[in-house]
Amino acid sequence: LAACGRDEAPPAVEPVAAPAAPPEPPPAPAVQPGLPAIRWRLTSSFPRSLDTIFGGAEVLANRVRAMTGGRFDIRVFQGGEIVPGLQALDAVEQGTVEVAHTCSYYYVGKDKTFGFGTSMPFGLNARQMNAWIYYGGGQELLDDFYANYRLLSFAGGNTGAQMGGWWRKTVATVDDLKGIKMRIAGLGGAVFSELGVVPQQIAGGDIYPALERGTIDAAEWVGPYDDERLGFYKVAKNYYYPGWWEPGPTIHFFVNQAEWEKLPREYQEVFRAAAYEANVAMMARYDHQNPIALTKLLQSGVKLQEFSEPILKAAYKAAQQIYADEAKKNPAFKKILTAYDKYRRSQNAWFSVAENRMDVFLQSQA
Amino acid sequence: LAACGRDEAPPAVEPVAAPAAPPEPPPAPAVQPGLPAIRWRLTSSFPRSLDTIFGGAEVLANRVRAMTGGRFDIRVFQGGEIVPGLQALDAVEQGTVEVAHTCSYYYVGKDKTFGFGTSMPFGLNARQMNAWIYYGGGQELLDDFYANYRLLSFAGGNTGAQMGGWWRKTVATVDDLKGIKMRIAGLGGAVFSELGVVPQQIAGGDIYPALERGTIDAAEWVGPYDDERLGFYKVAKNYYYPGWWEPGPTIHFFVNQAEWEKLPREYQEVFRAAAYEANVAMMARYDHQNPIALTKLLQSGVKLQEFSEPILKAAYKAAQQIYADEAKKNPAFKKILTAYDKYRRSQNAWFSVAENRMDVFLQSQA
Repeated sequence: LAACGRDEAPPAVEPVAAPAAPPEPPPAPAVQPGLPAIRWRLTSSFPRSLDTIFGGAEVLANRVRAMTGGRFDIRVFQGGEIVPGLQALDAVEQGTVEVAHTCSYYYVGKDKTFGFGTSMPFGLNARQMNAWIYYGGGQELLDDFYANYRLLSFAGGNTGAQMGGWWRKTVATVDDLKGIKMRIAGLGGAVFSELGVVPQQIAGGDIYPALERGTIDAAEWVGPYDDERLGFYKVAKNYYYPGWWEPGPTIHFFVNQAEWEKLPREYQEVFRAAAYEANVAMMARYDHQNPIALTKLLQSGVKLQEFSEPILKAAYKAAQQIYADEAKKNPAFKKILTAYDKYRRSQNAWFSVAENRMDVFLQSQA
Repeated sequence: LAACGRDEAPPAVEPVAAPAAPPEPPPAPAVQPGLPAIRWRLTSSFPRSLDTIFGGAEVLANRVRAMTGGRFDIRVFQGGEIVPGLQALDAVEQGTVEVAHTCSYYYVGKDKTFGFGTSMPFGLNARQMNAWIYYGGGQELLDDFYANYRLLSFAGGNTGAQMGGWWRKTVATVDDLKGIKMRIAGLGGAVFSELGVVPQQIAGGDIYPALERGTIDAAEWVGPYDDERLGFYKVAKNYYYPGWWEPGPTIHFFVNQAEWEKLPREYQEVFRAAAYEANVAMMARYDHQNPIALTKLLQSGVKLQEFSEPILKAAYKAAQQIYADEAKKNPAFKKILTAYDKYRRSQNAWFSVAENRMDVFLQSQA
């Protein structure tokens, strides 16, 4: 999943209607009496050009402003405007800004436990993430951990299951993966590495030329809607799925704890409700856009390729081993892993019944 | 999907911790200056004992109250307290109450077009309903239709794909369905009827004895969480899936248009955000509860049974014929069907790729 930051400048290839300056928020109505006027700054980890994922922060800010008659005013900045995209969490922790919209797993360099809040390879899907966070004890487990950083977290978006990226050649067996240079970061990269892939860290804007020249063999980005706009299909026709490293990544709002406590109770509640909205709205917007983009891609000659069962099985096994190894040395990781894993198994046992049978039949009639 | 009303008294079998009186709302803080104190009444179509689906209205009301410091106070009543559950929509249209929490498809007797807002046999799943309503033009199409009834609609919950109910005997072929007496209503009943099933209208509380005595052969209710509490498994062991008549039913808040227009803009926005929350929260709560209930059911000796491909195909074909016939005589139905059908096909083509392949693999590891 793309962000922008140190290694992740917003890709320069095929900029789509690049809106240079952040649009002004709608004119604030006259400030109402009663509750104080409060202005916050939100730093996003995303470039404005990734309009759906970036837009999640605007959904929140616009609704908060409208609900409070403009009195609680959250200004949204894209990655790099205040701090680089991958430093959004630090900016909140240090109080540079009050709130960030980012993926916790961008910070696995600090502690791998940050992975759980967004997505783990072969982890929970989008609906399961919501179930776990809202009702399955996930919120409490995550917030216990984030308290070390004086952060509060609010689920604020999801992309759904991602695609497995753009590959110059097809791969059928685990052997075929040996030596493949793939642009992929985080835990997904670590798992692929166990299978012989050589993960590459490449800024977003450099992916296209690297893929074109063959400096890299493959690159993952997000899903059809975001991918189509970057034009990777012109230089690597094989579009693999599923992106097993991100079955349903949750994007979060992180709020500085001290700033949160200064808010009137009503504003806290307003923020909470708007975060729920941002969460469901981003998923719906991706679900709306992806089918349209997929159709365009297929019309451009893209070849859909499914990761083979042997590759998925080997990756699954490698992922479980990485988790077990980390759990041995990291008690915070172990605590969440134990709960998360149990939850995942129970969820998948149920989802295989009515949901999956329904979906598979409906898809066979499409 | 269960409601309570004329034909749908809350089932009396195995009442679970039946809370007789509606709990008082939390004590309202002193009314703040600025915006007016407004009190609305909400009638739910559901009994309080169906705590998750009924609870969607409480999620909305509690958040609205908290966001406005108690000034916008929506009191929630279960089906039958003010009007019968299946007259909730009429109560809003006539101004008896300001808002209802109900399923539009309970009103297909007025016009089959009411089916689309909740669920159509073989229609959109839960995520697809959100995509369609929020971004795919669904909200506008539905609201055009609801304007005839002076109603505004807000998506406010989903159960996910339902189960196919409790059957005394197994059925493998379409022939096996001939003469089966099944408790099922609405469009699902109409489709089954084409396959030889004899749909029965039975109040919720009468299902258990009818199934026990063999007066009926099968009965559908909701999904594992709600079903388990009614104990149907004691008298009909075969638990079929999927409930193809409800792949992802959306529950809606319906608001009286004139009352809506009287609200201060801020309260309208507060209501909107709280409805988004109720929508995603209900789905998450069902997703959390269903796996736990399914495990309990399987431990009680329930036999999971999959509807055979021939039965699903015959039902799919019958459903499409019913839609085509209705479209010929009902322009409002035709208008929405055309858009809905196109959307469904495009959605399923995309969901069959990353989402389904990911889910199927994860389920195989559970």
